Amino acid sequence: MPVLIAGSIALDHIKTPTESSGEVLGGSASYAALAAAFSCPVNLVGIVGADFPDQHAKLFRSREINMDGVEVVADGKTFRWSGEYFGDLNSRETLDVHLNVLAHYSPELNPDYRRSDIVLLANAGPDSQLKVLRQCEAPVFTIADTMDLWITTMRDELAELLQGVDMLVINDSEARQLTETTNLIKAGEKMLAMGPRYVILKKGEHGSLLFGRAGEFFTTGAFPLRAVHDPTGAGDSFIGGLAGYLGSLGKREVDLEDLAEGILLGTVTASFTCEEFGLRRLAAISKADIVARRDAFRSMARLR
Amino acid sequence: MPVLIAGSIALDHIKTPTESSGEVLGGSASYAALAAAFSCPVNLVGIVGADFPDQHAKLFRSREINMDGVEVVADGKTFRWSGEYFGDLNSRETLDVHLNVLAHYSPELNPDYRRSDIVLLANAGPDSQLKVLRQCEAPVFTIADTMDLWITTMRDELAELLQGVDMLVINDSEARQLTETTNLIKAGEKMLAMGPRYVILKKGEHGSLLFGRAGEFFTTGAFPLRAVHDPTGAGDSFIGGLAGYLGSLGKREVDLEDLAEGILLGTVTASFTCEEFGLRRLAAISKADIVARRDAFRSMARLR
Repeated sequence: MPVLIAGSIALDHIKTPTESSGEVLGGSASYAALAAAFSCPVNLVGIVGADFPDQHAKLFRSREINMDGVEVVADGKTFRWSGEYFGDLNSRETLDVHLNVLAHYSPELNPDYRRSDIVLLANAGPDSQLKVLRQCEAPVFTIADTMDLWITTMRDELAELLQGVDMLVINDSEARQLTETTNLIKAGEKMLAMGPRYVILKKGEHGSLLFGRAGEFFTTGAFPLRAVHDPTGAGDSFIGGLAGYLGSLGKREVDLEDLAEGILLGTVTASFTCEEFGLRRLAAISKADIVARRDAFRSMARLR
Repeated sequence: MPVLIAGSIALDHIKTPTESSGEVLGGSASYAALAAAFSCPVNLVGIVGADFPDQHAKLFRSREINMDGVEVVADGKTFRWSGEYFGDLNSRETLDVHLNVLAHYSPELNPDYRRSDIVLLANAGPDSQLKVLRQCEAPVFTIADTMDLWITTMRDELAELLQGVDMLVINDSEARQLTETTNLIKAGEKMLAMGPRYVILKKGEHGSLLFGRAGEFFTTGAFPLRAVHDPTGAGDSFIGGLAGYLGSLGKREVDLEDLAEGILLGTVTASFTCEEFGLRRLAAISKADIVARRDAFRSMARLR
């Protein structure tokens, strides 16, 4: 059964200290979908305008990403984001945001989508994430990503969302913000107390930590990259790779072993994303590239 | 055969935002020796004054740490350091340093010590580290730690040291300083080009990266701690745990497998160090505690 992935579909402009991307495909759901589709078909939920380039839709379709759930607003414009990275690409500033069709979007799932087993609520407003979640009838495993903006502006909705999902995925600075806790282990435990059975704390180049309500813990580093070209979407690709892996298992229950394997796949998928602007690298590689890097990483990190 | 460990032996005063340590045993060689001694006898090389408390010497001796190589200056005072940690204990300031007997110390090894197989040059001036290294006749594996101060003040001596040791151990900010490179993978490669066959890049709570000249790579996270009481000496304990493990093998050649296992042991040893001021925690635990935590970490990090 396909993985359900809901979130933003965007047209991005990205600047780094050395280069500008021009207009590229972006958005949390785009990255997550392309990442997941290496392992499992995807049902994509989102919204675009009539200006959404056909080449991007073609890319999705070429990768078993079903777009029946992507609303196309005939007289609307696609969500646009532009941002600039500084120094070592560890700091970023949003230059411009045009919500466009995203501004009044209320996601509607078709009956088929509502029966999804694995549901990934990629980064979006928690109100929108909740709308998708509530339409899912009996999901096996639900995952939500979030960001600093929603922690500040939609804390109540986020709290409600956390009560309803199986897993929260969040980066380290956002985890500290959400829990008002510096120690990341304590922060992980505090987030578990907010509702989800599992929390993944993403640490960028330092890898990730997985916490489980039953005391489960898993940690792994990131795949070593000699150069990061553009970190945009790395987190979305990570979570998409994980969700796709869970989808490929087709299980009625997800356990720690599954999550650890999924994290491994997400980790290497994210590393590819960082190698070129936007989704260019993921669009250029195949499942075999992912698997080869996963196996190399498993060996170098001496993982079981 | 005992591991040779040379470095500083100090009396420290440590302040954290919540507590003061009073005068505690410190110094790079003290931490490293106590950490190594869980796996292998240690020959300790250093210098103290007549004021060095007998209880500390007793602790060393109770742990198979031979002090024949520790010079006691009858009319001198032991090296003293005091420092203060701020906020989340990730930033530290040195409040006071009195080199005392360390100021004009020139380490001399006895014939027995000169034949050591595993040699750990714990953090000290690279001039002093070089003096120890040059007296070693045919070491199997030599490891050197360093710090920001020496990168700034003794760059030539450090460069010479790096030509002579098998492994450099350094933290992430120092690696960036030494190589003038932000990307840690590139920094690792640049340090390999400076001489050592292996480089370990320590990242504190984010674990470590191991680089080898033949393209070897290993990464692992840190043991998850819910609270860090005092991070002083964590890096020294890490490297000591590694050196002790290598010493315990008694091999004529050290390979990647050995280093990865040693890093695992060093990682958990360092985690104990952080749990109390100074060496209090290491002084209170046994080899069985180290092994139990290593096995727990191996399991949770899904390591082979």
